[in-house]
Amino acid sequence: MISSAEFRERRERLLEQVRGVGGTGYALFDPSYVHYFTGFWFLSNERPIVYMQNAEGADAIFVPEFEVERTSAEASFKRIESYPEYPGLEHPMRILAGVARDLELRGRIAVDQDGYPGILGYQGPPLSEVTGAEVVSVGARIEAMMARKSATEVELIRESGRWCAYAHARLQEHTRAGVSEAEASLQAQQETTLAMLDADGSRGLLGSGDGAKAGYRGQIGKRSAWAHAVAHNIRFQPGDVLVSETGAPVCGYQAELERAMVVGPPTDRMQFLFEHMLASRQVALDAIRPGATCADIDAAVLSYFEQHDLQRYWRQHTGHGTGLRNHEAPFLDVGDPTPLEPGMVFTIEPGLYDDEVGGFRHSDTVVVSDDGYELLTDYPTDLESLTIPS
Amino acid sequence: MISSAEFRERRERLLEQVRGVGGTGYALFDPSYVHYFTGFWFLSNERPIVYMQNAEGADAIFVPEFEVERTSAEASFKRIESYPEYPGLEHPMRILAGVARDLELRGRIAVDQDGYPGILGYQGPPLSEVTGAEVVSVGARIEAMMARKSATEVELIRESGRWCAYAHARLQEHTRAGVSEAEASLQAQQETTLAMLDADGSRGLLGSGDGAKAGYRGQIGKRSAWAHAVAHNIRFQPGDVLVSETGAPVCGYQAELERAMVVGPPTDRMQFLFEHMLASRQVALDAIRPGATCADIDAAVLSYFEQHDLQRYWRQHTGHGTGLRNHEAPFLDVGDPTPLEPGMVFTIEPGLYDDEVGGFRHSDTVVVSDDGYELLTDYPTDLESLTIPS
Repeated sequence: MISSAEFRERRERLLEQVRGVGGTGYALFDPSYVHYFTGFWFLSNERPIVYMQNAEGADAIFVPEFEVERTSAEASFKRIESYPEYPGLEHPMRILAGVARDLELRGRIAVDQDGYPGILGYQGPPLSEVTGAEVVSVGARIEAMMARKSATEVELIRESGRWCAYAHARLQEHTRAGVSEAEASLQAQQETTLAMLDADGSRGLLGSGDGAKAGYRGQIGKRSAWAHAVAHNIRFQPGDVLVSETGAPVCGYQAELERAMVVGPPTDRMQFLFEHMLASRQVALDAIRPGATCADIDAAVLSYFEQHDLQRYWRQHTGHGTGLRNHEAPFLDVGDPTPLEPGMVFTIEPGLYDDEVGGFRHSDTVVVSDDGYELLTDYPTDLESLTIPS
Repeated sequence: MISSAEFRERRERLLEQVRGVGGTGYALFDPSYVHYFTGFWFLSNERPIVYMQNAEGADAIFVPEFEVERTSAEASFKRIESYPEYPGLEHPMRILAGVARDLELRGRIAVDQDGYPGILGYQGPPLSEVTGAEVVSVGARIEAMMARKSATEVELIRESGRWCAYAHARLQEHTRAGVSEAEASLQAQQETTLAMLDADGSRGLLGSGDGAKAGYRGQIGKRSAWAHAVAHNIRFQPGDVLVSETGAPVCGYQAELERAMVVGPPTDRMQFLFEHMLASRQVALDAIRPGATCADIDAAVLSYFEQHDLQRYWRQHTGHGTGLRNHEAPFLDVGDPTPLEPGMVFTIEPGLYDDEVGGFRHSDTVVVSDDGYELLTDYPTDLESLTIPS
């Protein structure tokens, strides 16, 4: 669990940024940001939930009235302000303006965005309009803060990684020729989610719908060459190439673990692609160290592919950040010059995709350390371990 | 399934709007809108997927390179344009500008929003900047189009409603004193998703993760008074008040079915709140007819609550639109003056919430008809049918 001291420290660092841009305070509209800075978790929909803090540290959470009692019972905000409903007789943003005024947010207000985003039918005026203040975005600074994980955050992602491995083992058990993806996937998810709840009660699972995921997302047979295959209730067949995916958020934090697999004995061609994928993964891992850039890691992989004349099987960059969102900046991509820093967490997932054979991609989660990296996911990577008997 | 003729007709109606605002064409960045106007379905993340059509009808879908083959195999776009990766050496929006130029989108371009939203770490320049064109939002017009469902859309929502009822029956079977929410929920979801797949193969399920949902979302015991309770792996106990929820998208279309329930014999107080909730639901249904406004429906419910001195148990407005999104505009709320029209689909879910007892809310899905309404969900509403033996 993230301590209230850590949440306070995050807000303090944000306030430094806000003072730096001459803001009288800030307002956060993005549900992930409210969660990151306060620990408050909620179902987000067309009804805005907004967190505001002024430069002196006084703050308020702004929720629809029906959330007041839960907010009061489950969070520790000193001040909870509310509006009756959305859209209501008075628009929530007009009521929010009064709260902002009361917190002495005026002149210049730092924001993630100028008002509530158009979630599920929401429409409304920008914050700048209802307050008359100038708004200045600190969204990029927030993303930069979120990219560098604390030791506690890394531990939560590591715990997520352990449950991903558990889910993957269940998925692999249930994956057999003749079984459908849905059957294997639903069974593995159910077993893992119940095991997570047995292990820690409800500590790590924020919502009832927030359990383990495990499946193939349609990446089965030649369709595995489509990196975002989606859909289709396919039955596994001997000779299928598979790309799995798993997820298991712990207090909202998500590791990523995916494996290329084969049903039945792999062909020579499959072995060839699998082994090159595995080697390129090692190339990526070996390139990780503070001071290298995101682009460097991706360039190292591309250079390996070029060296072995595999460029035509390339489809996606090497990886992406992960944390409270399952994809987040920065990206291990030739176009991203962000320097790696200790505490940054990335997926490492270079893949080779051959339309005639299938796709080969492992995804692991790593944290950048002081002198290299540390793996946060631990699951067999070799073809023998990942071959389903057929 | 929505026919290609219906998708074409939707685009034609949008083009009329676009020509009406003097646009040379339009660009859609919201994944739901791309789906609504083209039928194309995909995993959305930091990599923009954009659909553009010019005033003469020529169009293009714009996807990351790894989606080209799937797009070509699974959709029927005449023209597929792509970019290597995000962020890439050249930003996707710069490449998109070339496609827009080629389609002769210039001068004034209609959009849902001025560029790709900040999904999962995406950052980039607005369309207006990369094209030098003036952009004009047609987002509200698109929402108005989506609010009025065609006969085919209503049928898909009705089919979703049938699966919601199936899921609810499974959930009710597995809900017993001593069982946990997760156990009942995961089991009901698994059974329903597999039954949906057995019944129609993969027709109605767009993605592997796209199955039936059934559970309580923590709305158990007194927590059921918290309309968005979230979280917590609670075991059912005699005397618990429950509020369920179910979902089962069919081709992406979603009905909503929820029921107030009681474990064990209900107390007099529970019966009192349940019966008034049921009566207020009938008040809402009786008020539905073309020409009445959204506000009228909510006002009728509020007036019933006032009449019976129940205002202090009110927490939420009467309902919301539903369709390709599980919440969408318009809202059955005293602040929404939108007139009801045949084909509009709403949830009807007035509730009574007593912190000392629990929450009582049924949610059903209705379509506005020529002279009233038609229910798209069919599940017992009486307390006897909704009492779990304890």
